[in-house]
Amino acid sequence: MVKRYLELRSLDKALELLTTSFAVPQRTEKVPIMQSVGRVVAEPVFAKYSVPEVNLSAMDGIAVRSRDTIGAGDRTPVILEHFARVNTGNIVPPEFDAVIMIEDVWEAGDHFQIRRAAAPWQHVRPAGEDIKENRLILPRGHLIRPFDIGALATYGISSVEARVVRVGIIPTGSELVPLGVRPAPGQVVESNTIMAQVFLDQLGANCTRFPIVPDDPDLIRGTLRHAVKDNDLVIISAGSSAGTRDFTESVIRSLGELIFHGVAVRPGKPVMLGKVEGKPVLGLPGYPLAAQTTLREFAAPLLESWGLPPAPRFPVTVRLAQPLVSDPGFDEFVPVFVGRIGSTLLATPHGKGAGVQMATVKANGYTHIPASVEGYDSGTELEVLLTTDPGSIERMLILTGSLDPSLEELAILAHEKGLFIHASNPGNTGALLALRSNTCHAAPLSLPARSLLTSYQPFIKNLDAGDLAFIHIATIELGIASCEGLGLKDLPSARFINTKRESPARVVLDALLVAEGIDPSQVNGYLQEVHGPPAVAAAIRNGFADAGMCTSSVASAVGLRFVPVAHEDYELAIRREMLEDTRIRTLVSLIQSPVYRAILVKTGGYDVSLTGTIRGLNSEDTLTPFSPGSLPVGYI
Amino acid sequence: MVKRYLELRSLDKALELLTTSFAVPQRTEKVPIMQSVGRVVAEPVFAKYSVPEVNLSAMDGIAVRSRDTIGAGDRTPVILEHFARVNTGNIVPPEFDAVIMIEDVWEAGDHFQIRRAAAPWQHVRPAGEDIKENRLILPRGHLIRPFDIGALATYGISSVEARVVRVGIIPTGSELVPLGVRPAPGQVVESNTIMAQVFLDQLGANCTRFPIVPDDPDLIRGTLRHAVKDNDLVIISAGSSAGTRDFTESVIRSLGELIFHGVAVRPGKPVMLGKVEGKPVLGLPGYPLAAQTTLREFAAPLLESWGLPPAPRFPVTVRLAQPLVSDPGFDEFVPVFVGRIGSTLLATPHGKGAGVQMATVKANGYTHIPASVEGYDSGTELEVLLTTDPGSIERMLILTGSLDPSLEELAILAHEKGLFIHASNPGNTGALLALRSNTCHAAPLSLPARSLLTSYQPFIKNLDAGDLAFIHIATIELGIASCEGLGLKDLPSARFINTKRESPARVVLDALLVAEGIDPSQVNGYLQEVHGPPAVAAAIRNGFADAGMCTSSVASAVGLRFVPVAHEDYELAIRREMLEDTRIRTLVSLIQSPVYRAILVKTGGYDVSLTGTIRGLNSEDTLTPFSPGSLPVGYI
Repeated sequence: MVKRYLELRSLDKALELLTTSFAVPQRTEKVPIMQSVGRVVAEPVFAKYSVPEVNLSAMDGIAVRSRDTIGAGDRTPVILEHFARVNTGNIVPPEFDAVIMIEDVWEAGDHFQIRRAAAPWQHVRPAGEDIKENRLILPRGHLIRPFDIGALATYGISSVEARVVRVGIIPTGSELVPLGVRPAPGQVVESNTIMAQVFLDQLGANCTRFPIVPDDPDLIRGTLRHAVKDNDLVIISAGSSAGTRDFTESVIRSLGELIFHGVAVRPGKPVMLGKVEGKPVLGLPGYPLAAQTTLREFAAPLLESWGLPPAPRFPVTVRLAQPLVSDPGFDEFVPVFVGRIGSTLLATPHGKGAGVQMATVKANGYTHIPASVEGYDSGTELEVLLTTDPGSIERMLILTGSLDPSLEELAILAHEKGLFIHASNPGNTGALLALRSNTCHAAPLSLPARSLLTSYQPFIKNLDAGDLAFIHIATIELGIASCEGLGLKDLPSARFINTKRESPARVVLDALLVAEGIDPSQVNGYLQEVHGPPAVAAAIRNGFADAGMCTSSVASAVGLRFVPVAHEDYELAIRREMLEDTRIRTLVSLIQSPVYRAILVKTGGYDVSLTGTIRGLNSEDTLTPFSPGSLPVGYI
Repeated sequence: MVKRYLELRSLDKALELLTTSFAVPQRTEKVPIMQSVGRVVAEPVFAKYSVPEVNLSAMDGIAVRSRDTIGAGDRTPVILEHFARVNTGNIVPPEFDAVIMIEDVWEAGDHFQIRRAAAPWQHVRPAGEDIKENRLILPRGHLIRPFDIGALATYGISSVEARVVRVGIIPTGSELVPLGVRPAPGQVVESNTIMAQVFLDQLGANCTRFPIVPDDPDLIRGTLRHAVKDNDLVIISAGSSAGTRDFTESVIRSLGELIFHGVAVRPGKPVMLGKVEGKPVLGLPGYPLAAQTTLREFAAPLLESWGLPPAPRFPVTVRLAQPLVSDPGFDEFVPVFVGRIGSTLLATPHGKGAGVQMATVKANGYTHIPASVEGYDSGTELEVLLTTDPGSIERMLILTGSLDPSLEELAILAHEKGLFIHASNPGNTGALLALRSNTCHAAPLSLPARSLLTSYQPFIKNLDAGDLAFIHIATIELGIASCEGLGLKDLPSARFINTKRESPARVVLDALLVAEGIDPSQVNGYLQEVHGPPAVAAAIRNGFADAGMCTSSVASAVGLRFVPVAHEDYELAIRREMLEDTRIRTLVSLIQSPVYRAILVKTGGYDVSLTGTIRGLNSEDTLTPFSPGSLPVGYI
């Protein structure tokens, strides 16, 4: 039996219900000032005493009574009998109300002569100049910043009363194991409540995480009953979908009232809100990205409506590097990667699968697509909220094309230099499209020999031929992977697994089959395509096929035997002007470094004799030497 | 003897010396993931296992071998003998490589019939879809965010190796007392190292704060020698000026090398850098704002150059509400307050005194004036770095004019509603200028009866008369404050202290003297002016004068006797269109609330019978009833 969501509320309606259905908790706690950064003060903070507490001299000179100086002038000098010698920062004795600079007084026996009247309070830092006793330092609701702490200490404050919200977090699910335990197949580490605690603690909540509760409605009910007693908000993780083992809704109903279940938001549709003993109970969906959305778009606004600080927001306006589709009627939150190409901030949507946590790790922001929008065309300007320091964008390089393990090794070297690589894998065709639309810094290409000019000419032409430079990363062995060490001639008798039509491995295979006189129809499995060399290797390792084309590093990574049949050139294509970019310069110097060559040689399957050479395309679209380094035989 | 700075380095040159004179420390520490938010990973983090570790079904249906389904169609149905029934999230047994949705299968005895071929891996969440064993989760240098923690937990990571810099912080100064001790006159609470620790901890430093060291070069030397052993950076607070008790420079020279002392930066000119046992020693100036600048502009960039995270930056483009002068040749950092009027972000510079900590508390940002700039005109667009959540700007109301304690009470009520008041006190003239230039939301005015139309007409004319509304806050008693209860007729025999010419108290006094037939020259002290009622009260309390004009609340606040002689109307003037602003609506509803009236009555000296009435100026510049509420007799 599959339950359905009878009614999906809009995000706006759900947020209105969330923020208006509950009394604002009034909990506060005393926090020593050194732990108070990021907290919101619950009561106004007043100065314990004036600062400075007494009048201080702002100059080296003499403290005087200003009334005594009235009438002093060049022709009517005045000799002062009442004065005190003071230096900067000294106390001005209470009987004086002005300081005359030492340069403006003349010694006259034991006294001083002056030739100009002193205005009341001149050169005096009056008591209370910074703050007066009992005056407001921080208003109620002020969010404490690091430098506020200095003022608080100066004004005699050791601790503040800060707002706090207690949140009880209940992880449920029989398939869960706690952090530190290795999950068996089918089990997963309970991570959503860890994420919830870390995220909400940052906002000034005080979280209590309960032990994992198996999928048993009685146990969940008991824990919830306990949790609502001590907390202002209870979050139940998972069990909020519409499956047969999802008990959260029925447990809430049995103890209180269900306010909503199901909101037109993606990811996060199964989000649920209940009320038990007057307290909100938020049902967190089990998929990690859905849980994140619920924490950020529901839990955080609820805490903010209760006076806790908002999560920091870094909005930037970006241009979409590719189209972004969206379900009309749903508010969607999509992780995106933002990078800068020239003066343009470009955003690439980063996978919408709710289960894929690496999407948020690799993304540095997210965008909110309102329910009324069906999607955006490539090139649309929209707002992204960054999840990283905006400055970090300048340290990001966007690489789009065909990925190979050699690029990952390069990225690890680059990270040591503070240069971050964001690589995506749409293949050679996608690489050239990205170069053409100027939506990547560099495009890694797997180029089977002889195929470049015929296959990719249309794209390169659109790129203003002659504007491209090719940085050679490595020459990579391409061959037949199998468990038994099969070769090209063995293919007709084996179960083969193929790659997509435009892939280098496929192009090479087709050329080799022609050369060997083998008709594709003779190859059992020629029509079964998977995406890229790693999928080929995985299919063979798992027994779904006997042989396939891939690179030697991919084959050896999963323990397959490998019979080389050809080479491919792994090249980084860039617009020639990008050679001046400091980040590209760093990357090129890393490619050319002995350390990188040594890593490739150690990995095996890479010929590094041309690694680091840079070549260009001339206006006739033929490959020509571009900088020191020779054109490899047979490259064209 | 006063030492001088022989040479001031430019900020750029100083930063270059700071970030290139020392080896990058390589210290790391193991941090449990739940404490790792905001930390930078020191070593790449790799997945402990694949996630998912086995193939999972993405649908309810049957797991099949895709090869068995080839050729299935409506006219060529295929009956499958090998299959397994799976629900969403179940393990797909290793012998199967695809899932067919339950809706697409027909039962056929013990078997299932299908009418469409299954593509390999359809509806399968393949093992390693999220991440594969040993693949990179976080690159070296990644700054950990809350939602990264969820991924780390899922991928089997319990702790990470994070970068850490150990910072030793030495407070020096014989005038200092530690936090929690009440300073005697001339003493201050040691707050700069507290601020330093809180600020640098936020950036991932591990700070050790030493006990306060008196101004004794041998004691400072001993502490520094100890501190450089265990720390990567040592900060000595104060003792870096050029005074006779400033030993930091000589102590550094005695143990190592002085790299610079004095940088062309304000505040922060005395900043000092030394090298002792290869470690940087940073001399922090003693003035709090100078210490803040040094921490933010020197210490933070040094830690960032060592791979710690940057301090968060929220840059906004603002328009200056008033001119901002600057010393050419000095890089200046000025605290500013940013508020929004209509669609314009307006910035008001917030005091440049290095000693006034309330300036940074009240400011919500700062601006950097480069050394090449002499200052900016009012209206100039410039960049401000916010020190608060940008969203908080929308909750800020800018009030410019004459401040009275009744406004502070209003502000405290407003804070409870999440509305923040930023009040500055340039008097009535400044208030009307701010209204004219549209650089405040509302202008509190102290209006002596009868004087409004004559005194302020020129300003009001420029404001498009008729566009202003006046919200009555209270009618305030104005009178003679003294220790002995003096009245108007006593003035010729007392020492009087006056207020500035344009102030309401002065206008009222002059009118009263005329009415009483007293010539100003008969009043002893008539020419001695101080700024505003609080200064009058302070002068009398401190014995510098016997009598002066102020409001009753100011007089009673310092325990003076008070003889009322007149009233002033305390009004909030706003552009009429602002009556629609939700923040102004909130403020008006607070002024009209019984709670606020009760507070004023309890404070004493306020007549609240008109509190909350709203009136307007018509086109003839005369006060007329604007909304329900009557015109007070004698107001015009």
